[in-house]
Amino acid sequence: MSYSPLLLRLIETLRCMPGVGRKSAQRIAFHLLERDRGGAGELSKALADAVAGIGQCSRCRMLTEHELCTICSAPGRDESQLCVVESPADVMAVEDATGYRGFYFVLMGHLSPLDGIGPGELGIELLDERLGEGKVRELIIATNPTVEGDATAHFLSNLAGKHDIEASRIAHGVPLGGELEYVDGGTLSHAFFGRRVVDLYC
Amino acid sequence: MSYSPLLLRLIETLRCMPGVGRKSAQRIAFHLLERDRGGAGELSKALADAVAGIGQCSRCRMLTEHELCTICSAPGRDESQLCVVESPADVMAVEDATGYRGFYFVLMGHLSPLDGIGPGELGIELLDERLGEGKVRELIIATNPTVEGDATAHFLSNLAGKHDIEASRIAHGVPLGGELEYVDGGTLSHAFFGRRVVDLYC
Repeated sequence: MSYSPLLLRLIETLRCMPGVGRKSAQRIAFHLLERDRGGAGELSKALADAVAGIGQCSRCRMLTEHELCTICSAPGRDESQLCVVESPADVMAVEDATGYRGFYFVLMGHLSPLDGIGPGELGIELLDERLGEGKVRELIIATNPTVEGDATAHFLSNLAGKHDIEASRIAHGVPLGGELEYVDGGTLSHAFFGRRVVDLYC
Repeated sequence: MSYSPLLLRLIETLRCMPGVGRKSAQRIAFHLLERDRGGAGELSKALADAVAGIGQCSRCRMLTEHELCTICSAPGRDESQLCVVESPADVMAVEDATGYRGFYFVLMGHLSPLDGIGPGELGIELLDERLGEGKVRELIIATNPTVEGDATAHFLSNLAGKHDIEASRIAHGVPLGGELEYVDGGTLSHAFFGRRVVDLYC
């Protein structure tokens, strides 16, 4: 025996969310139907509105329902710095943790030729155009420290070089609160070769 | 700075799901918008249809969009046994794991006077009526082994007694694969006092 068709369909479709398997989908479906039908209705509307309304910022590719995202349309930010990240969540992470006041460019992925993701898919043309405007003086590359992220960073630094723009990459090393003993070799090696003269910190 | 209003609303409403906090909601929202807009649209429709269509089975209170759920309307099940559980997920758990061929009754909760949940909220009248029909000969109580589940089990066994129906409760003890050394005291005590003569198993 199985669930009624409508319930089964709800459980199956809930699995489109990342990290939600059969058991979690079942738990979520029952929770919503038993205890929070109002919330489920709201969620249904929010999903439909988001899918219909949210596109990409025409300047930085961030997710937004407007022509320009809240950062690109904010007054008083520093036009000389442009930080390139892989995903919209990274924008929020940098924005929340650092005092960075420049602009962003969201690749929505990383170079991955095997998956058919090349410069075209990452909006590199738009970035090229942006760098060509002559206002950006530093390209801060904040792609992830993975093989694909590294390849993407390499590609971006070449692009910056073409425009005579300085390219920098965020530091990789031992995280705060981490202990050397438990840090993996690759990270430690990065931290070691990326060492800085202590005076610089004063 | 924050997300655009529509994105913010999606992230906030995603949090109505159990186990989904701010970070998970953000991750789900980005995943759906970046990689699975089709799935998000389907989910939106499935949620709306489920909220509008799914109610309770008029006989056992299981969630279903029909008058009777798939179990209550299945032919050939044993009318002499009725298993009482707390939630629809419990029905599926018993159904999947055991060869039980009787019917179910779903309380949709447990007695909890402090939260204002009494017999009325658990559909006890409907159960009383069902037991009064005279077809049920064994009431299998499968409420959870918690304080409220125990109180509910006690209440249900009294109800069964009123109708001269045998009440049984599923066994609590050491789970298969568990080791005595690591089982908590309450469970071990239950297992000890619920011991059975070995010959019965032959």
